[in-house]
Amino acid sequence: MNLTIDVIGIGAGSPAHLTLEAVAALGEVDAVFAMDKGAVKADLLAARRAILDAHAPGARLVTVPDPPRDRDPRDYRATVEDWHDRRARVLAEAIRAALPDGGRGAFLVWGDPSLYDSTLRILERIRALGVDFGTRVIPGITAVQALTAAHGVTLNRVGRPVLTTTGRRLGERPAGMDAVVMLDGGAAWLEHADPAEEILWGAYLGTGLEILRRGRVGEVGEEIAAEKARLRAGHGWIMDIYLLRGAG
Amino acid sequence: MNLTIDVIGIGAGSPAHLTLEAVAALGEVDAVFAMDKGAVKADLLAARRAILDAHAPGARLVTVPDPPRDRDPRDYRATVEDWHDRRARVLAEAIRAALPDGGRGAFLVWGDPSLYDSTLRILERIRALGVDFGTRVIPGITAVQALTAAHGVTLNRVGRPVLTTTGRRLGERPAGMDAVVMLDGGAAWLEHADPAEEILWGAYLGTGLEILRRGRVGEVGEEIAAEKARLRAGHGWIMDIYLLRGAG
Ligand SMILES: C[S@@+](CC[C@H](N)C(=O)[O-])C[C@H]1O[C@@H](n2cnc3c(N)ncnc32)[C@H](O)[C@@H]1O
Ligand SMILES: C[S@@+](CC[C@H](N)C(=O)[O-])C[C@H]1O[C@@H](n2cnc3c(N)ncnc32)[C@H](O)[C@@H]1O
Repeated sequence: MNLTIDVIGIGAGSPAHLTLEAVAALGEVDAVFAMDKGAVKADLLAARRAILDAHAPGARLVTVPDPPRDRDPRDYRATVEDWHDRRARVLAEAIRAALPDGGRGAFLVWGDPSLYDSTLRILERIRALGVDFGTRVIPGITAVQALTAAHGVTLNRVGRPVLTTTGRRLGERPAGMDAVVMLDGGAAWLEHADPAEEILWGAYLGTGLEILRRGRVGEVGEEIAAEKARLRAGHGWIMDIYLLRGAG
Repeated sequence: MNLTIDVIGIGAGSPAHLTLEAVAALGEVDAVFAMDKGAVKADLLAARRAILDAHAPGARLVTVPDPPRDRDPRDYRATVEDWHDRRARVLAEAIRAALPDGGRGAFLVWGDPSLYDSTLRILERIRALGVDFGTRVIPGITAVQALTAAHGVTLNRVGRPVLTTTGRRLGERPAGMDAVVMLDGGAAWLEHADPAEEILWGAYLGTGLEILRRGRVGEVGEEIAAEKARLRAGHGWIMDIYLLRGAG
């Protein structure tokens, strides 16, 4: 079949995050495959749609229903595994049906394909199901970079390490280590950050809803948590990320 | 004076890493300020020059000699501090001289301005010297993303944290934690990685010299170290980065 599947990072909110390499790749694709994550993230689907209209007007958009997922599983890892497997099956079918011999398909990935995203792993599974294709990964601006740029700060302090982690695993952070936290469904900073630490928080980065907060966790932590709950209720969804920097 | 200074991430090797936002910003600047790091990195200056020719043909390129720096200091932190201070002074002069009232200047930063880069801190110092300006930070693709894209892998394993650190601090990594390592002047993996860990290494990413290696540290570690020494001798400089992933 001689298929190619591009995995294209589209940046973390602003359509201007797109790289020249991503624009060139979009111009070459026959079909773009997307998971339909339901009404909640309709704003994100609209952003993707705008990118396609601007840079890949000729490409077919193939939307595949996302299999349901247990959001609060007992065995996190096994549940994710099983969910990826079901996604792979529906996608393998869609790819087979949509791409001609020698065709080029693409997955658009929010941010960068390397960061807390399952597309590359799903492609491995699709390959294991017998669909053969080459892959090209095109990096995109991550939410981490959107956060630091919006605050005008560096991620690391001079010469220092920094941890990238999730709300779920923040509690395992080694003492005194700076951390950037993604995928926090709640307000893990209230439980797992020192009151003297600085939090640099941002939500809906790069979009018209962008909002930033900054201060000591002990001073602004509760306020940000309340704001996050309010925003989520108001918009029906939220994406936020934050950097925690120790006092030391 | 009403000056603006843009800090523009230009990506980590390929001119196609440029974002649409960076291209738009480049089209608006009156002058671009650059540190001249000497002959060693002539290839990098050429890349920058090509970006300016393509996207900011009208801008003036103001090259400022980089003050000398002690590469093997006793007190790393104090030495870096002093060096930044001297840089700030020459740059403040250059900005005052080059920008008209209401003018827009830019610093082009390799990769992303948030990652092991001193430009944002230098701008703080320039402000402290009495030059007043607004700043806009434009994110760029990092060497980390260039590495993972080239290898076609994710940075983190499912739901797991990952450490971003330097060759100098790799030895302080908590046991069993995946890490991406930058600024390694030697081959710190030989000393500070487990032989069973996987190393995903890349040098000159995004450039015509790009080279990738992957395998268990115990099997390919020595070979990569020898290759790195050979490449550095041959080209006169090297930029490399790697991801270490535990067996567990
Ligand atoms: C599944 S991860 C995907 C990350 C993405 N691949 C990237 O490179 O940024 C989703 C998480 O990214 C963060 N995120 C993504 N876009 C964001 C935005 N525009 N504003 C704030 N956080 C964002 C949030 O922490 C969210 O929970
Ligand atoms: C001073 S840091 C700057 C990092 C940059 N701000 C970024 O976002 O990638 C320089 C280090 O970045 C890494 N690096 C930058 N460009 C690279 C490239 N093209 N290939 C491999 N490593 C690179 C190397 O580890 C190098 O020592």
